[in-house]
Amino acid sequence: MALRARAMYDFSSENPGEVSVRENEILTLFSEQDIEGWLEGVNSKGERGLFPASYVEILRSDTPSTYNNNSCNTSMENFSKPSPPGFSTFSAPSQQQQQQSFQQQQPSQGSDDDWDDDWDDSSTVADEPGTVGGRYQDFEGNGPSTYRVSTSSMSRGNAQHAKSSATVSRNLNRFSTFVKSGGEAFVLGEASGFVKDGDKICVVIGQYGPEWQENPYPFSCAIDDPTKQTKFKGMKSYISYKLTPTHTQTQVNRRYKHFDWLYARLVEKFPVISVPHIPEKQATGRFEEDFISKRRKGLIWWMNHMTSHPVLARCDVFQHFLSCNSSDEKAWKQGKRKAEKDEMVGANFFLTISTPAAPLDFQEVESKIDGFKTFTKRMDDSALQLNATVNEFARKQISGFKKEYQKVGMSFKVLSQAFEMDQQPYSAGLNQAISFTGDAYEAVGEYFAEQPSKDLDPIMDLLALYQGHLANYPDIIHVQKGALTKVKESQKHVEEGKMDGAQAEGINERCNIISCATLAEIQHFHQIRVRDFKAQMQHYLQQQITFFQKITGKLEEALQKYDNA
Amino acid sequence: MALRARAMYDFSSENPGEVSVRENEILTLFSEQDIEGWLEGVNSKGERGLFPASYVEILRSDTPSTYNNNSCNTSMENFSKPSPPGFSTFSAPSQQQQQQSFQQQQPSQGSDDDWDDDWDDSSTVADEPGTVGGRYQDFEGNGPSTYRVSTSSMSRGNAQHAKSSATVSRNLNRFSTFVKSGGEAFVLGEASGFVKDGDKICVVIGQYGPEWQENPYPFSCAIDDPTKQTKFKGMKSYISYKLTPTHTQTQVNRRYKHFDWLYARLVEKFPVISVPHIPEKQATGRFEEDFISKRRKGLIWWMNHMTSHPVLARCDVFQHFLSCNSSDEKAWKQGKRKAEKDEMVGANFFLTISTPAAPLDFQEVESKIDGFKTFTKRMDDSALQLNATVNEFARKQISGFKKEYQKVGMSFKVLSQAFEMDQQPYSAGLNQAISFTGDAYEAVGEYFAEQPSKDLDPIMDLLALYQGHLANYPDIIHVQKGALTKVKESQKHVEEGKMDGAQAEGINERCNIISCATLAEIQHFHQIRVRDFKAQMQHYLQQQITFFQKITGKLEEALQKYDNA
Repeated sequence: MALRARAMYDFSSENPGEVSVRENEILTLFSEQDIEGWLEGVNSKGERGLFPASYVEILRSDTPSTYNNNSCNTSMENFSKPSPPGFSTFSAPSQQQQQQSFQQQQPSQGSDDDWDDDWDDSSTVADEPGTVGGRYQDFEGNGPSTYRVSTSSMSRGNAQHAKSSATVSRNLNRFSTFVKSGGEAFVLGEASGFVKDGDKICVVIGQYGPEWQENPYPFSCAIDDPTKQTKFKGMKSYISYKLTPTHTQTQVNRRYKHFDWLYARLVEKFPVISVPHIPEKQATGRFEEDFISKRRKGLIWWMNHMTSHPVLARCDVFQHFLSCNSSDEKAWKQGKRKAEKDEMVGANFFLTISTPAAPLDFQEVESKIDGFKTFTKRMDDSALQLNATVNEFARKQISGFKKEYQKVGMSFKVLSQAFEMDQQPYSAGLNQAISFTGDAYEAVGEYFAEQPSKDLDPIMDLLALYQGHLANYPDIIHVQKGALTKVKESQKHVEEGKMDGAQAEGINERCNIISCATLAEIQHFHQIRVRDFKAQMQHYLQQQITFFQKITGKLEEALQKYDNA
Repeated sequence: MALRARAMYDFSSENPGEVSVRENEILTLFSEQDIEGWLEGVNSKGERGLFPASYVEILRSDTPSTYNNNSCNTSMENFSKPSPPGFSTFSAPSQQQQQQSFQQQQPSQGSDDDWDDDWDDSSTVADEPGTVGGRYQDFEGNGPSTYRVSTSSMSRGNAQHAKSSATVSRNLNRFSTFVKSGGEAFVLGEASGFVKDGDKICVVIGQYGPEWQENPYPFSCAIDDPTKQTKFKGMKSYISYKLTPTHTQTQVNRRYKHFDWLYARLVEKFPVISVPHIPEKQATGRFEEDFISKRRKGLIWWMNHMTSHPVLARCDVFQHFLSCNSSDEKAWKQGKRKAEKDEMVGANFFLTISTPAAPLDFQEVESKIDGFKTFTKRMDDSALQLNATVNEFARKQISGFKKEYQKVGMSFKVLSQAFEMDQQPYSAGLNQAISFTGDAYEAVGEYFAEQPSKDLDPIMDLLALYQGHLANYPDIIHVQKGALTKVKESQKHVEEGKMDGAQAEGINERCNIISCATLAEIQHFHQIRVRDFKAQMQHYLQQQITFFQKITGKLEEALQKYDNA
């Protein structure tokens, strides 16, 4: 039976490849797997194309197609449509987009082996009454929907909804990151929970302002030997990676889907932390050597950013992922369920943060955040340009440069072959030397073709990781800005006598927590950025120097052949 | 008044751009300056296009258009049509073609300053009764024509024509190089003259067969300081080169037209010696620095081949050119006239050759000549390919390679500028280092663009010179082959009793002289070829090594900037 979806909102196509859809229109989907936030399908007019995944709900054949129209002020103002593939400036999907994709994909039985596996089936969150759809109950507290919608809003805060102060306006835009992340609920004092000492996350004042307290037990984790595994007598295949963290020295085997599951947990848990993106999913060619090698490199970069982060490195779900014995299925499932039931996610995450004694100056914070916003935009633009240049440079070296040097080599060879027709002994040495020179230039052409994988590819990997971070920051900045707006509103309300000072003070304090966390995260970003780009530029230049020295060596070898010619 | 010509033979156009002409058709010319043996004009049907210069006679307005139709068996068999520009494999015009061009151009008053000068006007060969047209009287001995024809046959032998043996057939193809060079006349015993001791040219048997006796007084000649000179109060401008031969240590000033005049004398004088081609003429931009520099390089190569040649280096006209004081106009003109009246040219040149005592085995000679013919074809093909490759490689380095490296440099610069928005002290070092790296890659791009003039241009200069030699050899081989044919004919005639043995023996001896000279010339060619290509390949590789070392150095400098970043 064809996969169908219902449009929840009107969408007007703006670019080639998109199709317009109307609210309540029934669409036929080609796949429920989205492409960077877009689904492909056919509308009721029979037009085929892309539309935003977040504009539609997928209709399950086993569930009645009842549409809970909770259209209480669904302002589209802050709803940011995903950029269609190829039109994106921020080419990586944002955290929220990736999260939505994840939620959509979880129940799918698509062709990607990374997803159609068994262990999810027996322990999906849908099995647990009261948590159907996880956080994905609708915003109005209407209880679990009988269908999974592609978009949703913060739900953990529902229990505290009644406490909400009528004097501070809620952001009724159900698509706002501020709402979804739990930032709003937290600022309004709606988050509550028991924070264990072990969960405490400290922001301290360092040399350059607020920063995450360093991980007292730093570690790293190697990712080796991706191997193809099979189960069900070869019916199912997957790639398994060997992870060896330095602090446990115990190897565990993990699959891409484990990384993906972990990533979703982290994004859900940490509203103002830029969780590094895992390498992109790929449906075909997953067992090809090049792809496996590329994915492993991506996972190594990802792991490096995870272990380098003072908060992410220490969190329970990551530690479970790193240390749980792969063969102890029971322990794995327990940890998995615990992570999925973690109360300290979203709004409650902010409860775990302890800040320095002195509150921040919000004006200074705002200026710093604005500066950082400009910085990320500039960095994203330049990373995009560098990526395009480097990509093209690699392509040129592999094709054009190689070809030119090899054509020169070939022409020298042809000349030496012509010269060999003169069999006089005094020309034999020259003929051999020219022939060797021809070979040398063919080799140099090969060097050019081989080089990009050694120096340009790592730069592209680095840029991809940072483009992921840069795509996360608009949401993070949005949460902090939302909190600051609430502070300004509360000040106005106090002036107007609509709010008492204590309540406003609470909002201030909570905004201070969010601001401290955001600035600490920005500080961390700059530090790893400087570290990573320094190391990568050094690596690049070292590789380039080695490369040109190798060419020089080859040509010196050729030159020597003429000594006795 | 329009410049006109009369077609001497039918010509059928075979390629785009050519026009057909009929015998006796009157054509209008655009210029009497030919392009590699082709003239451009309009035929009587009004069709415009190219036709072979050698098929027409130019009609002078001051001379009656009387056409001496000496069409006694004008077999077209061995007539080789010049290749039209763009269709040539042998891209350089042959000696004969160049010689024809020279004869055509001499009286012209065209725009090329190298030609429209005064000193020729007062002393042109046309002034001297009995030698009008120089060698260019018609073949039948009809005496000087009243017009200059573009093609002609050997004339110096006319005095001896009566001696010609009726038993050995003459080659009646008036276009045959064998005839034109004087080879036929010599073999048939028609050449005679008084050979001074100083004119004697010795072929000796060396390690690899017949070779020219070495020049006992080897010398070289520097060509420096091309400077623009003017005369007639600035009305006329030309470039003067300072020549300093090592054996005289006295500087003389020479212009391109002097080189061109000398070249024509040499081609006329030496039928089986490959006279190096002088750099091509150019009508426009003759005073531009690039052109002057390129021409000087071409003249240096030419001079090198002249002084390296045991026969050319020592000949009177070259010595006059090298040593006559530029300001002593009288001495110059005397030497010039002497050279133009030289009796020992063409057929008589062979009289000056003294051979080793033992005659050559003609079968062996034939096989060597055939081998060399194949060699020249192969070498010409490979030189053509190498030239095209090197030319394209130079173009790519100047444009594409430069652009790619500079785009990388620019992208690094842009990244460093984005990074500079983060003013934290710990990132300043990195920003500067990346910025420096960007500059380094811009410099590397510049290195690529500058490099071809250092290493590829000299290769192209070398190839151009050798392509000139390779274009000379078909004619040289043709002369030797013609002589060998005469030997075979005479043997047959002796067998048939039509010729006495003494006469055949004379033909044998004279064919031996031509063969010795040809093989000596081939041996010399191989020796300078090995010398030149060895030196040039070494120079190329040295330049390439220096180039890649320079890049390495620049990148090492950039890498160091990260040490304190």
